[in-house]
Amino acid sequence: MTTPPDASRRRIYMDYAAACPVDERVLASMMPFFADRFGNPASLHSAGREPRRALDDARTKVARLFNAKRKEEIIFTSNGTESNNIGIKGAALRMKGEGKHVVTSAIEHISVLNIMKALEKAGFEVSYVPPTKEGFVDLEELERSLRPDTVLASIMYANNEIGTIQPIDEIGELLEKKDIYFHVDAVAAAGKIPIDVQRSKIDLMSVSANDLYGPKGVGALYVRDGTRVEAVTQGGGQERGLRSGSENVPAIVGFGTAAEIAMVEMAGKSKRMTALRDRLIDGILGGVEDSFLNGSRERRLPNNANLRFRFVEGESMLLNLDMMGISVSSSSPCTSKSLLPSHVLLACDIRTEEAQSAVQFTLGKFNTAEDVDYVVEVMPGIIEKLRAMSPFSQENIEEMRSTAGHRDSEHEHDAE
Amino acid sequence: MTTPPDASRRRIYMDYAAACPVDERVLASMMPFFADRFGNPASLHSAGREPRRALDDARTKVARLFNAKRKEEIIFTSNGTESNNIGIKGAALRMKGEGKHVVTSAIEHISVLNIMKALEKAGFEVSYVPPTKEGFVDLEELERSLRPDTVLASIMYANNEIGTIQPIDEIGELLEKKDIYFHVDAVAAAGKIPIDVQRSKIDLMSVSANDLYGPKGVGALYVRDGTRVEAVTQGGGQERGLRSGSENVPAIVGFGTAAEIAMVEMAGKSKRMTALRDRLIDGILGGVEDSFLNGSRERRLPNNANLRFRFVEGESMLLNLDMMGISVSSSSPCTSKSLLPSHVLLACDIRTEEAQSAVQFTLGKFNTAEDVDYVVEVMPGIIEKLRAMSPFSQENIEEMRSTAGHRDSEHEHDAE
Repeated sequence: MTTPPDASRRRIYMDYAAACPVDERVLASMMPFFADRFGNPASLHSAGREPRRALDDARTKVARLFNAKRKEEIIFTSNGTESNNIGIKGAALRMKGEGKHVVTSAIEHISVLNIMKALEKAGFEVSYVPPTKEGFVDLEELERSLRPDTVLASIMYANNEIGTIQPIDEIGELLEKKDIYFHVDAVAAAGKIPIDVQRSKIDLMSVSANDLYGPKGVGALYVRDGTRVEAVTQGGGQERGLRSGSENVPAIVGFGTAAEIAMVEMAGKSKRMTALRDRLIDGILGGVEDSFLNGSRERRLPNNANLRFRFVEGESMLLNLDMMGISVSSSSPCTSKSLLPSHVLLACDIRTEEAQSAVQFTLGKFNTAEDVDYVVEVMPGIIEKLRAMSPFSQENIEEMRSTAGHRDSEHEHDAE
Repeated sequence: MTTPPDASRRRIYMDYAAACPVDERVLASMMPFFADRFGNPASLHSAGREPRRALDDARTKVARLFNAKRKEEIIFTSNGTESNNIGIKGAALRMKGEGKHVVTSAIEHISVLNIMKALEKAGFEVSYVPPTKEGFVDLEELERSLRPDTVLASIMYANNEIGTIQPIDEIGELLEKKDIYFHVDAVAAAGKIPIDVQRSKIDLMSVSANDLYGPKGVGALYVRDGTRVEAVTQGGGQERGLRSGSENVPAIVGFGTAAEIAMVEMAGKSKRMTALRDRLIDGILGGVEDSFLNGSRERRLPNNANLRFRFVEGESMLLNLDMMGISVSSSSPCTSKSLLPSHVLLACDIRTEEAQSAVQFTLGKFNTAEDVDYVVEVMPGIIEKLRAMSPFSQENIEEMRSTAGHRDSEHEHDAE
């Protein structure tokens, strides 16, 4: 049986990939720019001076976190999605004279995949490199997909759903040799693992502030000096013409503070997250029969635990966990309204029913070992209850178990 | 001589078109959504519930301010520039099967004009209707520019530089008859004068929250039900697919509050602004020889005073006013870094040298009659000092005065 919900217990939020609270130091740094130093950084008079300086300062801090050579290589945007649009569409369209072929992986974030569809409509050919079962982009597969007319490859740093960290250095090396632009969607990875755009030979990289406990509504695109990109929207020419519109100074200042904090605290936080993550994964795999880890056990984001549970449905599990005071996602937050199984899990060769049973835990700063133990404690009861209900009756489960166990033995290593 | 700057005197900010301080009630309403109710509105668990409700609530408030029929007609964006991109480019590209001709005015905001250039590159023909000397779009000129293949006309509600308010109702009437989409850039007008999208038969309208004392980094696009628009960026499909990316909840909540406040307080504020504006205009025109008002004396935004001063240079004036503790703009805030004369003034048939002498005062909530009197007091001294300096020597001025007076007599009515 499930433990009854305890009304006095604070809610446990394990969905940091969907949204993060703003760090109190970040918010404090933003406050003076709302109503006091509110000027437009483009203004020539003195009210523009402090916002302009603050903008510069934030740009330096974000550049440092990713080891950009110059702060001018950082373009502030309104979020990771917009960064992806400028970085992928802007570069591909700008380069279309050199070739109209683009490469990506089948497990990119929905925004990247939808941008690829738009490029296809605009006459580009797109190759989708399939991942391994653990969600790795295979280097040889990637190399095979490259053509003389390939102008850009976009591979995410780490997967937002299953947390798998890609061999970004090796991919960067390969693409540089072939003289192909390398765009990296680093929204899920930024602030969690160290990123070095120079070492990884990245030309374009998208990040979002909120994933670093910065504010919503601000992101950045790293554009290596000399990389040719065209604007996808037009306006007053701010951010080197790549992202027009008066700069959102308070949010950008907050992003700078969040980047500065990440520089100092990331290593310690990641160590703590990794321990909690492993406690959660081990606890659930040990406590729930027919549960499996999605993604790689070793090369995964420190805060990500994505598991699937045979014979149950992820959405019901999410709602049951919610009733127990636990917030998690059933799939990518951006598509969580849809009942479709995750395209990431399907691409990793997981069957539809099992993909639909996935629950994604993303840990964050407020989570404790006690939280993890509580989740580990309530999971078996919830799963048991759900398995006792339709659409999988007890007999069905027995039957499916015998077939599935046979059919899926090749997947067992996912949860080794 | 100019009054010496008084160090104890608070600075006078008269550049509210460039940036506005966030209203304290707006900021207070945003605060809970940064670190407390920070969830993703798309989340199915309970942490998504309050942000989702807040989003809905803000949408209702913004819809009400502009008398939209349904709240779903409001699409939240990251600023007015992005709204213009979606509203103009998105609609024109979506309609290109019906025709590839678009109409606009020559005095639109730089973001609209740059979007038009992008449309021209994409194979559209664009007609730029010239304004009258006071900055009005002439209805007959507009009608003459319409063609059977015209799919969209974009005319701003009020000009951001010279404040002229367009005959929006009449334009809406005309365009509806011709079955042509009507996009309105209402960034400068919103919150200052009443706007009714139904009465004015507007199909698409761009606004920005900061101009209503809302936060930076959030705008809206009104999209009348049934209006065909395609997305200009791709992503997770938020905001009815027209503006992807996780919603910036705190900023959107702030926009809602700002809209709610504007509903109640706009009429009173506008009355106060109009009195201050007229006091400023009359004071300067009366105190400074060879000064002229740009735009219309009657149909102008309540907070806008844009004047030109023969034989001086706007930028020097701006810097001198700044030294006296007064913040103003020399031209459109978005292009204020450039020394080019305002395209708006040139389109209104004002000569280059005179256009370069324009100073734009935009008043706001913190301005008082005392502020205005101080500005009126210091202006003559500054102008006198500047006229005594290069590039216009005293003899040159006498000479130019006699020629210019002759050549420009047709302009005198601008400053009647």
